[in-house]
Amino acid sequence: MEIISVKLDAPKETNLILGQTHFIKSAEDLYEVLVTTVPGIKFGLAFCEASGKCLVRSEGNDNELKKAAQVNALALGAGHSFLIFMRNGYPINVLNAIKNLQEVCGIFCATANPVEVIIAQTEQGRGILGVIDGESPKSIEKVEDIEERRSFVRAIGYKK
Amino acid sequence: MEIISVKLDAPKETNLILGQTHFIKSAEDLYEVLVTTVPGIKFGLAFCEASGKCLVRSEGNDNELKKAAQVNALALGAGHSFLIFMRNGYPINVLNAIKNLQEVCGIFCATANPVEVIIAQTEQGRGILGVIDGESPKSIEKVEDIEERRSFVRAIGYKK
Amino acid sequence: MEIISVKLDAPKETNLILGQTHFIKSAEDLYEVLVTTVPGIKFGLAFCEASGKCLVRSEGNDNELKKAAQVNALALGAGHSFLIFMRNGYPINVLNAIKNLQEVCGIFCATANPVEVIIAQTEQGRGILGVIDGESPKSIEKVEDIEERRSFVRAIGYKK
Amino acid sequence: MEIISVKLDAPKETNLILGQTHFIKSAEDLYEVLVTTVPGIKFGLAFCEASGKCLVRSEGNDNELKKAAQVNALALGAGHSFLIFMRNGYPINVLNAIKNLQEVCGIFCATANPVEVIIAQTEQGRGILGVIDGESPKSIEKVEDIEERRSFVRAIGYKK
Amino acid sequence: MEIISVKLDAPKETNLILGQTHFIKSAEDLYEVLVTTVPGIKFGLAFCEASGKCLVRSEGNDNELKKAAQVNALALGAGHSFLIFMRNGYPINVLNAIKNLQEVCGIFCATANPVEVIIAQTEQGRGILGVIDGESPKSIEKVEDIEERRSFVRAIGYKK
Amino acid sequence: MEIISVKLDAPKETNLILGQTHFIKSAEDLYEVLVTTVPGIKFGLAFCEASGKCLVRSEGNDNELKKAAQVNALALGAGHSFLIFMRNGYPINVLNAIKNLQEVCGIFCATANPVEVIIAQTEQGRGILGVIDGESPKSIEKVEDIEERRSFVRAIGYKK
Repeated sequence: MEIISVKLDAPKETNLILGQTHFIKSAEDLYEVLVTTVPGIKFGLAFCEASGKCLVRSEGNDNELKKAAQVNALALGAGHSFLIFMRNGYPINVLNAIKNLQEVCGIFCATANPVEVIIAQTEQGRGILGVIDGESPKSIEKVEDIEERRSFVRAIGYKK
Repeated sequence: MEIISVKLDAPKETNLILGQTHFIKSAEDLYEVLVTTVPGIKFGLAFCEASGKCLVRSEGNDNELKKAAQVNALALGAGHSFLIFMRNGYPINVLNAIKNLQEVCGIFCATANPVEVIIAQTEQGRGILGVIDGESPKSIEKVEDIEERRSFVRAIGYKK
Repeated sequence: MEIISVKLDAPKETNLILGQTHFIKSAEDLYEVLVTTVPGIKFGLAFCEASGKCLVRSEGNDNELKKAAQVNALALGAGHSFLIFMRNGYPINVLNAIKNLQEVCGIFCATANPVEVIIAQTEQGRGILGVIDGESPKSIEKVEDIEERRSFVRAIGYKK
Repeated sequence: MEIISVKLDAPKETNLILGQTHFIKSAEDLYEVLVTTVPGIKFGLAFCEASGKCLVRSEGNDNELKKAAQVNALALGAGHSFLIFMRNGYPINVLNAIKNLQEVCGIFCATANPVEVIIAQTEQGRGILGVIDGESPKSIEKVEDIEERRSFVRAIGYKK
Repeated sequence: MEIISVKLDAPKETNLILGQTHFIKSAEDLYEVLVTTVPGIKFGLAFCEASGKCLVRSEGNDNELKKAAQVNALALGAGHSFLIFMRNGYPINVLNAIKNLQEVCGIFCATANPVEVIIAQTEQGRGILGVIDGESPKSIEKVEDIEERRSFVRAIGYKK
Repeated sequence: MEIISVKLDAPKETNLILGQTHFIKSAEDLYEVLVTTVPGIKFGLAFCEASGKCLVRSEGNDNELKKAAQVNALALGAGHSFLIFMRNGYPINVLNAIKNLQEVCGIFCATANPVEVIIAQTEQGRGILGVIDGESPKSIEKVEDIEERRSFVRAIGYKK
């Protein structure tokens, strides 16, 4: 067994969601839930079929993002994983809808940060062990950082 | 710390669900939610107690599947993990019910494929890092594959 | 890439929840959902901001637990991870409420056991691969263990 | 405004679910969620379109049940209501999946009992006010009734 | 058909939840979900069985509240309805857990206010049409009321 | 007791959601969940406080819609009910997020149709019994209607 790191090559100014599911139907179900949750969202998604033809299955409404999802999912090569790149929408808008899908197992990360995916590779195939989502924290926030944080969440209108 | 791969030895023609939970009550709760979601489902499940007696706790309504869940869970040896083998039912039928259980943390995989579980082992114990669920994808689907995929999901009656 | 194990240093007689989220708003959202689910709960939580200032963001209503969450989250150093230490409440009370938060990706573990967190470290940062939650199981439960288990869950009033 | 009672004329040995939704897509979404939750379920469902063509929209995999759902939904005549008749499956199997559908507002009842639906009728149309689900209780259970109740739920295997 | 109003006679300083479910198993499931969500909660609950013996089925961990739930549920007499009286816990703590139960259809109200339940009665039985939960609003809040409202929610610690 | 019908006076080209909740905190929680689910949504919402000052409590990010929600909620006068008018977003986008709020009991309707709300009025106050959402169905769909329906849902991109 080998453990490697694969950097996701996300298109500019996108958010991504990386998860694990268990069924080829996920490609259409993920498509539908994104479209029905955020009007105007643009996205591409790809799912790694893990038996039979073993193809990267893909849906989306934006060709650049769809192509990027396909290429990155193939680079990960992890059976039953899925990857979404999105614009005009944020993970916070759609994450609960995705977690609620009947065939979705879980979510590794949802982020606009650079992501390295830690992969285990054996003779059989590949699996995701975890992700490095952005950078490590440098220190603990101070009083003025707390105020700034709380103000920021309110300034963007997300909290009263 | 050592990182090893453990192959699950699933009984023939079963699906499995592997997850993380946090309480001995999970054995009965998982039993109840499987029975109340799919009439006629056959299954065995096992949970790795991680303190006190440290026993593999198990429930089910099929002896072969229960035995298999016990043996495989013991082979994994990962504290607070659980494993379900099922017949006459599919993960898509029960996964949301399991994700909704109050003590379930998350799901590593749900699949009918061969599974290798990547395990970290220390002096303290063992933990699941991830899974290799089936094989890696070989290429990106083409137009005819997309049609075939969409037809398949409709042929089994799962989509209109 | 290096893979290391970091032991959580939990305050006495606490439960902890370790998860992955994707947004600085998580600090306040986790605070609110804990307070509104369990009257009288005491807790501290910390979230690893993974871009910009890269600070450990923290909320809570108990200084010891808040400090412990900050220190341990910083020691993990995994971008977008969060850690909660709690008293006067149990993971089973709050886990569904946390899983339902719009920005939460998933939960690595929820436990009162000693926890080792397996971390991947690269130049970019750190990510959680998995956890060792307590000890490994030693054997499969026997008939008397099953009875004891079922009695225990009923003795604490959790099942009829 | 007039308030009337409409008796549902359910096919023999069926369970029914009566609810409120808000979109024509419900017909297919309800179909898909029933089929993907309970293998082998037989059902018919109907939805009262409340604008435009104002037709009873219907899906299902059993002609008798589909016809019955259409006729009864038309008899109710309540805009945006839906009605499901099912066999080889029980409301407890599918109710959470239905409640989770993005366009479902709520459920009036789920039952194998005779049902009278209380309807308000105005010039504009009709709306469901509530249901009479089976009979009224006659008295409070006694000690032996409690034992019988708890035994029954365990005898059918729904609780340990 | 007759439409009547039944005043709930709640014990002092309690909150109540009134809902619709579809199965005798609800009595134990409601018990379990209350106990596992709020440590120290005191409650009584009653469910109106709507076929067979047609008894008020009841569970709880406080005799006064249990008795009150039984008497009030019998007074309502609405098939498949349930009623919970609680202390040391609030509806906001437990409502999502109850809504998530597999057999629960929906919730009519959750409140500490005086409640009148509007009931339809026919030869067959009784059904809940709706509730009068407290008093009607008198006017629209002004700027100072908004400030007071936002301060109140923060003063009780429910929002930051 | 009197039973009356109150027509909602919705601003042009809006959708509305009418529901029951149990706590003054709902005003802010509904605001936050709408804003965090649909980027660019415009809405006003109002909640009928049912004790104490008994004011219509209101939030929103569009003055016309906020004013309309206030006036209509006051006209309904039903304790603990809430009403949302929205543009640049649809009920299907936000309904699950609203149903998941800890204090929300349930949803009466979600619609762009004309709505009459059936209200019970007593000396104590007012309660919602049900809604007339649009018009009654006129007949059962025929083969060509089914095709048209399925095409429509796909033409708007909501299903593949």
